[in-house]
Amino acid sequence: MEEYLARIGPADEAAMRAATERQLRLTKPAGSLGVLEELSVRVAGMTGVCPPAVPTAAVVTVFAADHGVHAQGVSPWPQEVTAAMLANFAGGGAAVNAFAANNRVDVRVVDVGVASDVDELDIVHAKVRAGTRDLSVGKALTADEVQAAVAVGFELACQLVLDGYQCLLTGDMGIANTTASAALIATFSGGTADEVTGRGTGIDDATLAHKTEIVRAALALHEVPASEPLGALAAYGGLEHAALAGYILGAAANKVPVILDGVIAGAAALVAQALEPAVIDYCIAGHRSAEPGHAVALKTLGLQPLVDLDLRLGEGTGAVLAYPIVTCAVRALAEMATFEDAGIEA
Amino acid sequence: MEEYLARIGPADEAAMRAATERQLRLTKPAGSLGVLEELSVRVAGMTGVCPPAVPTAAVVTVFAADHGVHAQGVSPWPQEVTAAMLANFAGGGAAVNAFAANNRVDVRVVDVGVASDVDELDIVHAKVRAGTRDLSVGKALTADEVQAAVAVGFELACQLVLDGYQCLLTGDMGIANTTASAALIATFSGGTADEVTGRGTGIDDATLAHKTEIVRAALALHEVPASEPLGALAAYGGLEHAALAGYILGAAANKVPVILDGVIAGAAALVAQALEPAVIDYCIAGHRSAEPGHAVALKTLGLQPLVDLDLRLGEGTGAVLAYPIVTCAVRALAEMATFEDAGIEA
Repeated sequence: MEEYLARIGPADEAAMRAATERQLRLTKPAGSLGVLEELSVRVAGMTGVCPPAVPTAAVVTVFAADHGVHAQGVSPWPQEVTAAMLANFAGGGAAVNAFAANNRVDVRVVDVGVASDVDELDIVHAKVRAGTRDLSVGKALTADEVQAAVAVGFELACQLVLDGYQCLLTGDMGIANTTASAALIATFSGGTADEVTGRGTGIDDATLAHKTEIVRAALALHEVPASEPLGALAAYGGLEHAALAGYILGAAANKVPVILDGVIAGAAALVAQALEPAVIDYCIAGHRSAEPGHAVALKTLGLQPLVDLDLRLGEGTGAVLAYPIVTCAVRALAEMATFEDAGIEA
Repeated sequence: MEEYLARIGPADEAAMRAATERQLRLTKPAGSLGVLEELSVRVAGMTGVCPPAVPTAAVVTVFAADHGVHAQGVSPWPQEVTAAMLANFAGGGAAVNAFAANNRVDVRVVDVGVASDVDELDIVHAKVRAGTRDLSVGKALTADEVQAAVAVGFELACQLVLDGYQCLLTGDMGIANTTASAALIATFSGGTADEVTGRGTGIDDATLAHKTEIVRAALALHEVPASEPLGALAAYGGLEHAALAGYILGAAANKVPVILDGVIAGAAALVAQALEPAVIDYCIAGHRSAEPGHAVALKTLGLQPLVDLDLRLGEGTGAVLAYPIVTCAVRALAEMATFEDAGIEA
């Protein structure tokens, strides 16, 4: 872990200054591209180059795992749906496949901890264990399991950058993973179980009340302080959260932007932020999920979402939806004419 | 005009019902794609087909014109910037070019009323007159000029659909065009000059106060009721607003979605709506501009914007930014596996 964190530094201030100055010379009124101007400056800072290359090679990595807390009845979906959806991703039939095909983003699917056997699927096989233990009765993961899952994400991020990807997007799949997310978000934000627990894929009032009570009791059981991010991953899981935290750290270590999807990615980014605050310089919030804990997570992360369209699916759909906004922002910075080019007096 | 309006009917309810039902069978929790589900249903209604074809062939048409009211000092930019920006569009150096290249949208540029001579540019030449008359001292356009400019937009929309485009996006360029927009938006929304007048490309407090007073006085001078949309175009212009109104009507007549850009498109859509309310069934609000009149216009149109990122540039940039959200929504409806396909019990 220390080795990973040592590779992460802050964004390049000289590149950001150059980008800010360049924005003023482009053929448009100053500031008229709004949030996209700041976004382009941030990408310059991440990559250390002004103007940065347009990150046309992008990949969304869907980290999939199961959760022992599923046994407590926090979701109406059977745990087998995680594996069934992996087959759907592999077959190209899920929402993230449709969005990714539309926006020319490649899709990687990683089994980092699915409960059932998915060996026959053409995906990345990196199962650390077959689902977490039940966070409501004890620690979800051992310290070694946390480390192994973080390494899966970090090493994969490094490999994807070596493969030529210039932008990494987060994705996730795991029935019951909003419960673990809620506990993680409460840990790092100081929010209450009521504030961070939501309906996930869609649960009724009684199930929501039960799920919230599970989160409240788990927080009291484990009492992990925000200063112990690896301890929080051990207490609550999930394996996909640990892998995503590693993936986000890996993007930052390689100085490429990482577009975060929804509440699962938000929880994982809070872990990464607690490990190394500079990681946020490389994070872009793709969207704001309808899940209430996500807004709490974004506030603690200090990130503004690009898209806010009431999505609550996960899989990486919100990140993929936001990706063309990022490339438009960079392309404008890189390719627009300056006033001088156009013969216009600014 | 009557001939145009007779070609516009409401969205196809059977296709919308089929799309709503299909959304429930796709491999995701019901409603989890949020606004994109409703958007896909709307596109099914526009095209009359479920699932609709993914509108991969799209074009943004930048209607450009000048405004006589520029003489009143409502903008810090010289009028010649309109023509200079047309050269920039033709050369591929503007923000809309960068966004359109990024999102695989073609760009058409139309001179429908630029004050100076732009004959040498490789654009669509359809100049109705060389800029409007000053709306603050009299009518900006004659009834014949309004009709001619509306026809430019309507006929071009029809031609673009014949050329194979499945989605039309609005764009605009014209120094001082937010002044005419403000007057139009006030006419159809009932808003006051204060509520609908903004800083456009960026003006100081004194210029904003002066511009607001110009709008207030023009509304009092012309007193056009909301029931006279062609009269409002004659009173205030601009030629690009009239052409855009025709273009929006043309999209609706051809049953293709039209993605509206910002405040100029909003003002033009209000004219189109006043001519034929069913036109709104074919309109998608690409984004919400930072210009205050745009929010007023969207409310009167009854449209929710897809993107809200503080853009205030125009040119069609907000529409182009929103376009992949529309194609993602349609692609999910058209291409996702159903629960039955995936062997999952819903």
